[in-house]
Amino acid sequence: MTSKKLSYGEYLQLNNILDSQYLQSGKQGNLVHDEMLFIIIHQTYELWFKQIVHELDSVINMFKGNYAQEENTGLVVARLGRIIEIQKLLIDQVGILETMTPMDFLEFRDLLTPASGFQSIQFREIENKLGMDAEQRVRFGKQKYDEYLDSNDRKRANESEKSPSLFVLLEDWLERTPFLQFKAFNFWESYQSSVEKMLNDDIKRINENTTLDKSAQENSMKNYANIQKTYEALFDEIKYKQLLDAGHRRISQKATLGALFIKLYRDEPVLQMPHRLLTQLVDIDQLLTSWRYRHSLLVFRMIGVKIGTGGSAGHGYLKKTAEKHSIFRDIANLSTYIIPRSSLPELPKELKKELGFYYTYAK
Amino acid sequence: MTSKKLSYGEYLQLNNILDSQYLQSGKQGNLVHDEMLFIIIHQTYELWFKQIVHELDSVINMFKGNYAQEENTGLVVARLGRIIEIQKLLIDQVGILETMTPMDFLEFRDLLTPASGFQSIQFREIENKLGMDAEQRVRFGKQKYDEYLDSNDRKRANESEKSPSLFVLLEDWLERTPFLQFKAFNFWESYQSSVEKMLNDDIKRINENTTLDKSAQENSMKNYANIQKTYEALFDEIKYKQLLDAGHRRISQKATLGALFIKLYRDEPVLQMPHRLLTQLVDIDQLLTSWRYRHSLLVFRMIGVKIGTGGSAGHGYLKKTAEKHSIFRDIANLSTYIIPRSSLPELPKELKKELGFYYTYAK
Amino acid sequence: MTSKKLSYGEYLQLNNILDSQYLQSGKQGNLVHDEMLFIIIHQTYELWFKQIVHELDSVINMFKGNYAQEENTGLVVARLGRIIEIQKLLIDQVGILETMTPMDFLEFRDLLTPASGFQSIQFREIENKLGMDAEQRVRFGKQKYDEYLDSNDRKRANESEKSPSLFVLLEDWLERTPFLQFKAFNFWESYQSSVEKMLNDDIKRINENTTLDKSAQENSMKNYANIQKTYEALFDEIKYKQLLDAGHRRISQKATLGALFIKLYRDEPVLQMPHRLLTQLVDIDQLLTSWRYRHSLLVFRMIGVKIGTGGSAGHGYLKKTAEKHSIFRDIANLSTYIIPRSSLPELPKELKKELGFYYTYAK
Amino acid sequence: MTSKKLSYGEYLQLNNILDSQYLQSGKQGNLVHDEMLFIIIHQTYELWFKQIVHELDSVINMFKGNYAQEENTGLVVARLGRIIEIQKLLIDQVGILETMTPMDFLEFRDLLTPASGFQSIQFREIENKLGMDAEQRVRFGKQKYDEYLDSNDRKRANESEKSPSLFVLLEDWLERTPFLQFKAFNFWESYQSSVEKMLNDDIKRINENTTLDKSAQENSMKNYANIQKTYEALFDEIKYKQLLDAGHRRISQKATLGALFIKLYRDEPVLQMPHRLLTQLVDIDQLLTSWRYRHSLLVFRMIGVKIGTGGSAGHGYLKKTAEKHSIFRDIANLSTYIIPRSSLPELPKELKKELGFYYTYAK
Repeated sequence: MTSKKLSYGEYLQLNNILDSQYLQSGKQGNLVHDEMLFIIIHQTYELWFKQIVHELDSVINMFKGNYAQEENTGLVVARLGRIIEIQKLLIDQVGILETMTPMDFLEFRDLLTPASGFQSIQFREIENKLGMDAEQRVRFGKQKYDEYLDSNDRKRANESEKSPSLFVLLEDWLERTPFLQFKAFNFWESYQSSVEKMLNDDIKRINENTTLDKSAQENSMKNYANIQKTYEALFDEIKYKQLLDAGHRRISQKATLGALFIKLYRDEPVLQMPHRLLTQLVDIDQLLTSWRYRHSLLVFRMIGVKIGTGGSAGHGYLKKTAEKHSIFRDIANLSTYIIPRSSLPELPKELKKELGFYYTYAK
Repeated sequence: MTSKKLSYGEYLQLNNILDSQYLQSGKQGNLVHDEMLFIIIHQTYELWFKQIVHELDSVINMFKGNYAQEENTGLVVARLGRIIEIQKLLIDQVGILETMTPMDFLEFRDLLTPASGFQSIQFREIENKLGMDAEQRVRFGKQKYDEYLDSNDRKRANESEKSPSLFVLLEDWLERTPFLQFKAFNFWESYQSSVEKMLNDDIKRINENTTLDKSAQENSMKNYANIQKTYEALFDEIKYKQLLDAGHRRISQKATLGALFIKLYRDEPVLQMPHRLLTQLVDIDQLLTSWRYRHSLLVFRMIGVKIGTGGSAGHGYLKKTAEKHSIFRDIANLSTYIIPRSSLPELPKELKKELGFYYTYAK
Repeated sequence: MTSKKLSYGEYLQLNNILDSQYLQSGKQGNLVHDEMLFIIIHQTYELWFKQIVHELDSVINMFKGNYAQEENTGLVVARLGRIIEIQKLLIDQVGILETMTPMDFLEFRDLLTPASGFQSIQFREIENKLGMDAEQRVRFGKQKYDEYLDSNDRKRANESEKSPSLFVLLEDWLERTPFLQFKAFNFWESYQSSVEKMLNDDIKRINENTTLDKSAQENSMKNYANIQKTYEALFDEIKYKQLLDAGHRRISQKATLGALFIKLYRDEPVLQMPHRLLTQLVDIDQLLTSWRYRHSLLVFRMIGVKIGTGGSAGHGYLKKTAEKHSIFRDIANLSTYIIPRSSLPELPKELKKELGFYYTYAK
Repeated sequence: MTSKKLSYGEYLQLNNILDSQYLQSGKQGNLVHDEMLFIIIHQTYELWFKQIVHELDSVINMFKGNYAQEENTGLVVARLGRIIEIQKLLIDQVGILETMTPMDFLEFRDLLTPASGFQSIQFREIENKLGMDAEQRVRFGKQKYDEYLDSNDRKRANESEKSPSLFVLLEDWLERTPFLQFKAFNFWESYQSSVEKMLNDDIKRINENTTLDKSAQENSMKNYANIQKTYEALFDEIKYKQLLDAGHRRISQKATLGALFIKLYRDEPVLQMPHRLLTQLVDIDQLLTSWRYRHSLLVFRMIGVKIGTGGSAGHGYLKKTAEKHSIFRDIANLSTYIIPRSSLPELPKELKKELGFYYTYAK
């Protein structure tokens, strides 16, 4: 066959794709109509997982080595943007499976034992490549997630666990953020006094709020004591290390400062793309959580509080992972340190130039 | 392998599914990153098409023979409902392909010639099984759509064209609607006078509307003359046949009257499910149109007004099909004959009983 | 003005609607562009709340008195369906507010103190009319939610708390479900043995599942012991009362049995609409939860872990309510008791007739 | 009232907002439940229109004067992005009105005559501020759209027609695109030869495509003759003017060249935001079209082919405007001139520097 005569079906390998639906209920001679949907929806999920891995690998490659080049950031943002679009689809797609009634699902569910979505190696790779902390995985029993995989898949899972994740590469990249110290300009000092002012105003507001009773005020005060403590840790190496050791932070102090600089001065040309990138990582995290949550609701709708086909805790397990398996939480948490635009310390002219377009200053 | 040890990967045939992405650009030694997306999105489309065919076949089977039984209507509605959910996903899915820029698409587009989405046999089957009128297909050149298919696919397309479509079976079923004539009760007469009153009120409103100029009034009058003509045809066999012959109608007069009865008395228990079914058919039609339209916009975004890879007119062809390839238009058109709830002729007690629950009247 | 000349603007009272945006930042002489969005989005929220109250009141009225009539169920389902569509929009609408950056929000946030969404009386009414348990409300401090309202609104809140909620009326209605005992047919016995069989199969599956370690098996066994306990309570008045007293159930045993009957035999004509109604109530609950969750994420994005403008705990408070403020949880939990369609005890012919259409059996 | 005690209800003027629903059917003593929905959904539409006008005005102001400054582009893109999010909501919102049945609508429809959505002054302002060509408006009868407005509104409509629209300001801005001629580099020549090559390849592909019959080939050839003609016009002032005079183009030749440069070199830092802006304008146009289309389907569902309450042609009028009322069509059409990334003429180093970040080249 020459490429001249390439047909649609050959190009897409439709012979393989459309001939890979073997209903277990069919083998038993009692075909259940809805099992087709169950197979096809999972196959489309796996195809999309392959696409996500494809994008993730390319992004990780661009981040590797000495990367911090502006040329690539646009491409990284485009590809993460595509992952986000796919994630949204995967969440919506749950709605199609919801057209299957629990009664119809129970008709073939037993035939699937002990197969389980728990065994999706691609999904594990996505988690690992993003940078899920192996220590924080919710376990079912005392076994690690990879003991449910066959030896081949376990090897792939372990490899993806060991090779540098997007989380780790991002941390490196953020630590390299330039301009955190720029000549005589001491950004952090003026920023600190802005934040202090903001927090003090908040505290004053609580004390003066006559609609709050004693106990509510005390709660608020405790909350603010905590905020001030984590805030102090921003600039104090020892205190930050304590948060890190206690598991309250995953990302290094230096990277946090880099990320905060990007968030605060996002409007400067050179920081616009990096800021979008940070936002996307939080989006990817939240969409992963939403997907787990929606999935857990579906399982609940199907089998209530009974166990999953792979022996997992079903709905309960999924709900727990939705709450715990966050990867870029520290980036999301930066919102606490945002201050009003009008309180933002002005950048020195020289620094502003560095963050701008060549064209603007060459005129 | 015994079913005891069934694994997730085996169940879903992931070996086949995930090993069927052959990038043409890879063959040329110059792999284009985005071709992966192009392949995977089309493969998921084809998997969903398979699911739609699966549902459509089951619905068609339930409609065949002497079917008009209430027991099945619930199931038909559930399965058409699933098709609708899938269609919504297929439309949203276009958004993922939009993350590919035209420049990147052009990088591998030439390698695909002459393969074309035009050759999707499953999509043709869906159109034919729904009941697309072969005569009304928009042609490109003078060839029929099936001449672009290979001999195997052409055979499948022709078979689906010849076997009874959902459109044809629905028409039969509607013609069998009971109660159109019920004892002494002459529903149609009272209905006719209600409609006449409504139309006359409308006409009066136009004549009295001082914000309309002469030409606008004349236009409205022409429009109403047409409405009255098609309305008269509702009950006049000869006039209806003229509409049918002129291609203004596809569905028989008897079926139209059955459908109208269902629409008007949808609140009666026995008609609730049939009414949902009619609504779903219109939804399926409109979603197919929306998909074509969204698809045509995408093609336009990718290649402008240039030709498609299969030599089709690309955007222009797709836009035309979006406007012309409607199947259940006659059902949608019934809206013209709806009257206010308060003007609806009351059903005789005896007939109301027939349309109700056994339990209600057995009390 | 006669109705003859009614204009679009007068009909919609656009003078009032479009002249009600007073920016606090404007009063201070330093207008913040984004405050307009903040006001308008909240106004649209309140308009939609008014619509939800309108629908809810009509549904509650239909349920009052001796209502259990099939005639109304269709209308109830249509109006709850509308509430669901509105809820989906309210969730999507959050996306518009997300186009405001935290920096811009902080620019006018202080000017709003102590106003807070906490004070939306309509939202409280919706919660109360649905049937939120006043005892289970998450409190901030020791105050009840209504102490943040002005005296007028507090009165409205209390009234909606005291008048019969949809929850209470639904419970009554479910308790009146006919056919739970039908002549010699002892449905519950055959159902019980089906469930027992299913649970025993599950337990066997866990014991035989070699991929589970000891601790995982023990967890599963504990889980199943719980399921069996709650299952036994289904038919045992004393045990059920214990669950009720311990706060594990809100709905009465009799109502639970009625709801389960509807869920299991949903395909019988007379039960189709009641089944959709039950599904809708679970949907409304879950959409309320999703809205709270999405809202809590937005607040987090805006102010991190700082306090809300009304002095509430902001993100933390909203997250907690998302998890706890469930109303129809007991209906959702029924999934646990669903059995495969093929194991469902067959209904006696006589009973099937009662649940069918008059027309079917009059033939 | 001091700002200290600002309440939620006062801030949002809920007294006005929630007390502006006067049902016409209520005046007649025969309140129709669904009229409330009809009023509230239109009020939310108008509130969102006000927000769109607010954003549009700010964008237009930023574009006025000598604006082409990079500082503002980020803000323009953010605000157009918000308009896009609102447009998506407005389209989804139609789904809520679809929960009203035609029968229920007809119950109060006559009471609204002659009020009509046609009279929404804010919608006319949005069209005019975007830059709708007054000449191309679809007319109903021979009257201009503003003759349906009262004198006050007509004045506002005319003002918005006369003041510089986004379309006009954008044209100016595009005409000022720098670098179209850069020193010795003759971009256009190398671009021209790339395009010629691409078009010739396409033509060759058609001629060699054996799956096309004679008539299809001839159609394609005609199509390509047209493409080549419009392409030649790109660089030929006289030919371009002919297209302009014939109404095939709205935007000037110089602006077209600027826009094309931005589209082709979108990856260069200084062009990234301008490129997003161009994409957004096409999105806004297409979403406006989608809204009109969805709206026309709704009207069709409600009244079929009968006339609208304001005497307009209802569904037919709306469908026509959906097809004709495009504003940024010329920007969308640029897709035709995109070439593969690999064929893109390389920019001279000096020019690349001008389009880059200061920081990149200062290192």
